[in-house]
Amino acid sequence: MLCLHSPSNPEWINNAKDNIHSILIDHAHCEKKAAANALHLIQNYPQYPQLVLEMIAIVKEEWEHFEHVYAIILQQNIQLTKDTGDSYAQQLSKNIRKSEDVKLLDLLLVDAIIEARSCERFSILSKCMSIPSYLREFYSTLLASEAGHYLTFVDLAKKFYPDEIVKSRLQQLSAIEAKIVQQLHNQPTIHG
Amino acid sequence: MLCLHSPSNPEWINNAKDNIHSILIDHAHCEKKAAANALHLIQNYPQYPQLVLEMIAIVKEEWEHFEHVYAIILQQNIQLTKDTGDSYAQQLSKNIRKSEDVKLLDLLLVDAIIEARSCERFSILSKCMSIPSYLREFYSTLLASEAGHYLTFVDLAKKFYPDEIVKSRLQQLSAIEAKIVQQLHNQPTIHG
Repeated sequence: MLCLHSPSNPEWINNAKDNIHSILIDHAHCEKKAAANALHLIQNYPQYPQLVLEMIAIVKEEWEHFEHVYAIILQQNIQLTKDTGDSYAQQLSKNIRKSEDVKLLDLLLVDAIIEARSCERFSILSKCMSIPSYLREFYSTLLASEAGHYLTFVDLAKKFYPDEIVKSRLQQLSAIEAKIVQQLHNQPTIHG
Repeated sequence: MLCLHSPSNPEWINNAKDNIHSILIDHAHCEKKAAANALHLIQNYPQYPQLVLEMIAIVKEEWEHFEHVYAIILQQNIQLTKDTGDSYAQQLSKNIRKSEDVKLLDLLLVDAIIEARSCERFSILSKCMSIPSYLREFYSTLLASEAGHYLTFVDLAKKFYPDEIVKSRLQQLSAIEAKIVQQLHNQPTIHG
């Protein structure tokens, strides 16, 4: 799916479906962090209108998703708890090079890969017959949006770097991501 | 105006109107930081649905304003530059007490006061005949929104603390804010 080099552990969905409240709480935090991340890109690269305009659209969409998942959380009488962090995203982000000439490339491609993995996990959730149909439908509607964000980040990278460089670095980072995913401890979180 | 103890330096508008590009750039950063601040409140107080729901609405509105001011920036061929920080907000935020039992009160009231001061500055801009009419109208439309945010933050404080405590702390912080404003160096920024 998209750029991913390996599928998720097939056991993940069994843990996820049995702990759907934890999934919903973590999902809310993921949407919030995606919005914060887009704000952060504007903060650091305000001089690029193409990037700013795309991030304006992404913040809007991620925030609509946050609002939607939070409405489900309230409806289900779940208490939103503090974000305990996303080890997967943290491990992947360690591969963002600090050198200014390549930092934006890595930032955009890491964001693209996280969107791709979220897309895969939402796809798995949308096909799981053990969770309520309204949740399957919800995750199904998010799929297209996440895939669109993946493309936005890759296309943005291609505005600032040659296609071959983007392809090659996306391959490298996707291979690193596949190893991170293979070593996850199967937690009931979107990237667990 | 609202809770403010003293009006802005009457010289500020002369500097602002002569440097309207700087005002627009700083305004964009203010809207971005207001959205980031609301995300931060959700991050730190996810357990309070009233707060989360109000912050969902505030992020949406601040983001619409960011989009609007950024459209003006592009239209005017202005380059959005990096945020150099808001000394006024930083000075005021130093008065947020760290003790957990009063921290939320101070966070909400500092936010309320910043909204009130932004409202006053937008009001001054909306009446300045030396700036283009479309900008006067733009600032005029933002007034009601900022005043609404001021009320949202004060009302939220009253959900978590007794009215008398809120009133008394708002008085204290407004007096501190008035002193900070009197010592500003008249910069062409929203809170300059």
